[in-house]
Amino acid sequence: MIKMYDLAGAEDSCRFSPYCWRVRMALAHKGLTFETIPWRFTEKDKIAFSGQGQVPVIVDGDRTVCDSWEIANYLDATYTNSPSLFGSPEAKGEALFIKHWSEQVLAPALFPLIALDIFNKLHQADKGYFRQKWETRIGIPLEKLATHPDRKLSKLRSLLAPLMDTLRIQPFVAGEQPNFADYIIFGWFQFAGCTSPLKLVEKDDPVCVWHERMLALFDGLAAQAISLV
Amino acid sequence: MIKMYDLAGAEDSCRFSPYCWRVRMALAHKGLTFETIPWRFTEKDKIAFSGQGQVPVIVDGDRTVCDSWEIANYLDATYTNSPSLFGSPEAKGEALFIKHWSEQVLAPALFPLIALDIFNKLHQADKGYFRQKWETRIGIPLEKLATHPDRKLSKLRSLLAPLMDTLRIQPFVAGEQPNFADYIIFGWFQFAGCTSPLKLVEKDDPVCVWHERMLALFDGLAAQAISLV
Repeated sequence: MIKMYDLAGAEDSCRFSPYCWRVRMALAHKGLTFETIPWRFTEKDKIAFSGQGQVPVIVDGDRTVCDSWEIANYLDATYTNSPSLFGSPEAKGEALFIKHWSEQVLAPALFPLIALDIFNKLHQADKGYFRQKWETRIGIPLEKLATHPDRKLSKLRSLLAPLMDTLRIQPFVAGEQPNFADYIIFGWFQFAGCTSPLKLVEKDDPVCVWHERMLALFDGLAAQAISLV
Repeated sequence: MIKMYDLAGAEDSCRFSPYCWRVRMALAHKGLTFETIPWRFTEKDKIAFSGQGQVPVIVDGDRTVCDSWEIANYLDATYTNSPSLFGSPEAKGEALFIKHWSEQVLAPALFPLIALDIFNKLHQADKGYFRQKWETRIGIPLEKLATHPDRKLSKLRSLLAPLMDTLRIQPFVAGEQPNFADYIIFGWFQFAGCTSPLKLVEKDDPVCVWHERMLALFDGLAAQAISLV
């Protein structure tokens, strides 16, 4: 069985990494059985065997793979009899653009809105690490990041416009069926959903309808995780 | 032979519509022979047979198809023996996201930078139409749109970040080979290239390298159009 080291908060049931969510959805998409191992930012020693210090890390027999994109590629190359995560080389190429869009556009607009909520969910041992890492990077206290939430939420929603227009026409980012491009974007929604009461999109927005569709996939895998928070 | 009604400036050789460029590249991608018919904004009567008033419009025997996305779909569905414009249903789904990103994010940042250059290239008969349409929409004279070009260019370049990071890893948006997702984005570069001296990206930027690759495709189809301007 595949093991995945998965970022957790103070509660083992709080799994909020957007990158780990990509992989968890990918493992379910491929119909693979897996178990997750809760991991905290400060437990670098536990994944030192992977040669780096971030999750997701999967261990599949004698293979260790890091980085969500690399893991998706590994799974598709290894488990060729189960549904592809990309569908075609062209779709993989375009998914890479969507990955970068989500990380460069969506994530920086989302993080300030939920940073303090994330902080409050963290294990005591991780709080100092998280605060220092982000306050060094952004130059202000986490508490100050959350100012003007209405303005920030409005900005975030405007950035979702290309997603909204796409989902007005088709049920998933990848068309009629979800694939890794959907899981990439959805990971950011789980990042918020597992840590914060923030509603990223308004009811009846096509993105909201898609979000509910994503939560329901694989017998409600993602919905269950949120209900545990 | 397929006929395409193609937006032109005062000179017949000035073809600058981003939507027409998608189709022109698509026709070349599919190896189809085609001729273009120069068309101006005010020649609504010439395409009235299509039931609407915008280009691109293609006429293929007794079939008339409008809208660049519909045309791409028509070409793939009709000419199944020539290379696909999308590659797979998943890639088509994701290309729709890229289309909306280019239209909602890239285009509004680009247009103010080149609006006056476009205006200056237009046929005398089109100038009033273009000015009135845009000044009504944006509420200021075209001449005022072009203020602070350095700031606007810097903003545009920052919006290209997801594209830049993608092209740092692979030669085309669609991976190893270009497809309609590339042509969609490239259309906006031709919009600028055929009307304005503006350099959208700096030399040695991965986007610049991709742009040169795109200009060279199909025996320099797009490069030749720029050299005529």
